Amino acid sequence: MVSKSQIKLITSLEQKKHRTKNGLFIVEGKKGIEEVLESHFELQSLYTTEDIFNAPKTKTHHISEAELKKISRLKSTQIALALFKIPEPKEIKLNGLVVALDGVRDPGNLGTIIRLCDWFGVSTLVCSKDTVDCFNPKVVQATMGSITRVDIHNVDLPLFLKENKSILRYGAFLEGEDFYSSVLAADAILVLGNEANGISEEIEKLISKKINIPKFSKNNKTESLNVATATAVFLSEIRRKQNY
Amino acid sequence: MVSKSQIKLITSLEQKKHRTKNGLFIVEGKKGIEEVLESHFELQSLYTTEDIFNAPKTKTHHISEAELKKISRLKSTQIALALFKIPEPKEIKLNGLVVALDGVRDPGNLGTIIRLCDWFGVSTLVCSKDTVDCFNPKVVQATMGSITRVDIHNVDLPLFLKENKSILRYGAFLEGEDFYSSVLAADAILVLGNEANGISEEIEKLISKKINIPKFSKNNKTESLNVATATAVFLSEIRRKQNY
Repeated sequence: MVSKSQIKLITSLEQKKHRTKNGLFIVEGKKGIEEVLESHFELQSLYTTEDIFNAPKTKTHHISEAELKKISRLKSTQIALALFKIPEPKEIKLNGLVVALDGVRDPGNLGTIIRLCDWFGVSTLVCSKDTVDCFNPKVVQATMGSITRVDIHNVDLPLFLKENKSILRYGAFLEGEDFYSSVLAADAILVLGNEANGISEEIEKLISKKINIPKFSKNNKTESLNVATATAVFLSEIRRKQNY
Repeated sequence: MVSKSQIKLITSLEQKKHRTKNGLFIVEGKKGIEEVLESHFELQSLYTTEDIFNAPKTKTHHISEAELKKISRLKSTQIALALFKIPEPKEIKLNGLVVALDGVRDPGNLGTIIRLCDWFGVSTLVCSKDTVDCFNPKVVQATMGSITRVDIHNVDLPLFLKENKSILRYGAFLEGEDFYSSVLAADAILVLGNEANGISEEIEKLISKKINIPKFSKNNKTESLNVATATAVFLSEIRRKQNY
């Protein structure tokens, strides 16, 4: 059974203010839930149509498919929905490569970037206040479990960069230097900007080196790469430079 | 004015069979329409709330915002919708690097891959019959105009690979060889597989070398990269190897 008040709580968690107020976020689907259950994240409640999860019985609610449909935000059929507690903020670890996002708004892009950080061994991701919330259900879905393996911090990005001037700060700019030929430090902050406007003027002033992925197309109309695919290219090349 | 029969035609073009039957596809939004207008694609009709496009008057229909809402599939407000003719299939050009997709289903992924081909100067993209149609409105939207600059061919992929055995055929497999250390030919076909299942068994037999992007994360649970971000990494590294 899902009570009316539980339905109200779950649907309210679509909005950041209610996630913050309740300290909870939503994970949907078998695989996603299993991955988060195996992590350090703490389960608050599990609503499931099948008895297949390794979760405490006291926190498990067996529900019907019709009930699941009422609380699910996904179109495709799932078997479960879980609420997990948003972890307490940790101290920001600044060794190695750190990725920083300046106003990334699309949940799919943020989810893909978190998954890329996980793949390329970037353990710290720093997000500006106007970046989409990493506990947005669409972001969580797109991370495919990687959200449990990357430490994500919401910060005042200008302040964060000012306070870390001892670390090199690379920024992705179309007019930046060809990063394939650049010497890049292993300890650095890589800043990527908003989908439409790139890195803001305020952050631009705090960048120590502007870098760019050169265009191999001869056509001048190709304007830019999507921020998530650009992140893929940057992280791949940085790791290759360090390891090969 | 948009007549009832025009509305019926436009909404029918959401479906591939109607696009094929009518030889038409939809482009929405100012920037997308402008890019396609400047290309070799032929306009069939333009429905616009503003008189700002460089398009033949005989093909331009001035409509109200309310009328545009009726025919638009996008949630955000646009100023125009255009129908363009699907170009006649060209001969497949097989010089240089060719990207081949085996069952890529997500329109956003195909759109991103087309945009990547454009950026990295891949002029030929070959799609299996079960890959999402490149003239699907969501694909067109995600390409950001790149659809006019990449030649996209729908083929019987097993037959296509059998007929081109003289060209090296690289396939992305998790068990493949570390492609950062691989010597890769400049003339080759790079095959990428379905989001959930990767490259099919039938296509696997036709691959000359399996390649992989190594994982830099120490965590074994990170399973794979999204097909579009994997394409970004492969294309970047292939171009770097050729040019630096």
